[in-house]
Amino acid sequence: MDSGERSWKDPEIGLVRGLYAATQPPEGSPPPDWQTRRTGMDAFGEMASLPDGCLRIDVDIEGMPAEGLAPVNADDSRTILYLHGGGYCIGSPRSHRPTVARLAAEAGCTALVPDYRMGPENPFPAAVEDGVKAWRHLLEAGLDPGRMVIAGDSAGGGLTLATALAARDAGLPQPAGLFCISPWANLAQKGPSYEQLAALDPMITVQGLDEFAAAYMAGADPAQPLASPALADFTGLAPILIHVGGAEVLMSDSIAVAERAGLAGVDVRLEIWPEMIHVWHAWSGQLTAARRAITSASAWIREKTGG
Amino acid sequence: MDSGERSWKDPEIGLVRGLYAATQPPEGSPPPDWQTRRTGMDAFGEMASLPDGCLRIDVDIEGMPAEGLAPVNADDSRTILYLHGGGYCIGSPRSHRPTVARLAAEAGCTALVPDYRMGPENPFPAAVEDGVKAWRHLLEAGLDPGRMVIAGDSAGGGLTLATALAARDAGLPQPAGLFCISPWANLAQKGPSYEQLAALDPMITVQGLDEFAAAYMAGADPAQPLASPALADFTGLAPILIHVGGAEVLMSDSIAVAERAGLAGVDVRLEIWPEMIHVWHAWSGQLTAARRAITSASAWIREKTGG
Repeated sequence: MDSGERSWKDPEIGLVRGLYAATQPPEGSPPPDWQTRRTGMDAFGEMASLPDGCLRIDVDIEGMPAEGLAPVNADDSRTILYLHGGGYCIGSPRSHRPTVARLAAEAGCTALVPDYRMGPENPFPAAVEDGVKAWRHLLEAGLDPGRMVIAGDSAGGGLTLATALAARDAGLPQPAGLFCISPWANLAQKGPSYEQLAALDPMITVQGLDEFAAAYMAGADPAQPLASPALADFTGLAPILIHVGGAEVLMSDSIAVAERAGLAGVDVRLEIWPEMIHVWHAWSGQLTAARRAITSASAWIREKTGG
Repeated sequence: MDSGERSWKDPEIGLVRGLYAATQPPEGSPPPDWQTRRTGMDAFGEMASLPDGCLRIDVDIEGMPAEGLAPVNADDSRTILYLHGGGYCIGSPRSHRPTVARLAAEAGCTALVPDYRMGPENPFPAAVEDGVKAWRHLLEAGLDPGRMVIAGDSAGGGLTLATALAARDAGLPQPAGLFCISPWANLAQKGPSYEQLAALDPMITVQGLDEFAAAYMAGADPAQPLASPALADFTGLAPILIHVGGAEVLMSDSIAVAERAGLAGVDVRLEIWPEMIHVWHAWSGQLTAARRAITSASAWIREKTGG
């Protein structure tokens, strides 16, 4: 992918594409092992700083580690349960800390980020079980579901939907909203964006997704709703906000979720941001569009949670 | 459709469904002629009042009648070109006057509503030619395209997109945004909503749409972009805001437009409003959700037009 060949209306995205390319192993290198990828993703999160005065605490959810974030002046009756991305195999509360902290600070609430179990060591449905466990933990702590949202990016966006579906099926209440950033919601990689946008996407490939899906599913069928929520019946789910970039092979997953949810009577808002790449919100130090996206989603979260 | 059988979370929509049903001819009645339908639709618009102090003037666009609306304190450098709905065969500036006036008042700008030619007397592409003629008129009057949007509902939502496509192809500038309410964007009635939501939609049927499409196309192929913009290449189009109801057979048209536009790099925001019916914005006297939808769209129009 030669990002220099195209001119972007937003010059900042050209810069970010260049930065991203510079951190990648040379073409043809053998794929790094899971531990190396995890270390690299955590390092990305540790490069950026937290909003001034944001508190961070370790939380134990019946044996599952998690991280709590409390920005200055956060309303602690309103919370984001944030499920990080990383293809269900990498990523952690550390890799996503600056992005989640910024989102929570702008939404004026606290955040809980579970270190949910991942593949290949802990395949599907461990991550979904852990998502529900974290949701149940917040409910049992006495928090009002109408003042909470579940949010996540990439695989964490899919996991946000899977957690809400599993919560519904378990008879638990829905949160006030579900915010999905560039969700990976169909582990079979289906839809026109996978072909039509492949040349524009600097980050995600079908081959890469297939590798993560195989590691997560460990032989189980990906065409089940808790693995590929784009295939689910969304009846009774909370309002959904989806952000997806215009230069993402994953765009079709967002379209499919919007369609299935809309057909089931769910409140849906889908935003497609031209030229933006997978989870551009993570580049808020570089991209005006990342800061705008977080501000806009935060307004939605405030509106839904009564903040 | 017995709207009494289902309970709605929004009690107001049950009332509106009842009001709508009460105005319909008894089942099995022969279809009214075009003139009768036009008179009825105009009467709907004339039942509601304009915002206090809103001025209305007749405009002549080289022989095409049109209506100008100027709400109190409107910024006359910012304008909505509004293309009314009615299946390309009925509707007029009169039928849509209260809705357009409310939208313009909240967006703080003026509106121009052309009485574009319709089928069956003036089939495709007369309406598209008239849409472009109105757009050209505004440009030649010296208005800044970056301070205007084109908007429309139902067939007018499709015509909004067709006008923007034709303007692009004619080398005219794009407006700052395109706001489509419940757009009819594929005259072949394609997509899962046509079946899955048929039992919920109190207003629109495939049979009805087929009748209007036949009258508008007069034998021409509906599978061309200016007739069915859901099939178009959206490259270079202005940002698009789509509002569609959760109880509309036309939902799939909105999904298709969002997908095609997103794939072409356009800024897209799609909102699906649960339980809402076709062009619920027209019921602002009865529906809180109609007023909220107009307020929300107006904020988007202000943002895009620098208002």
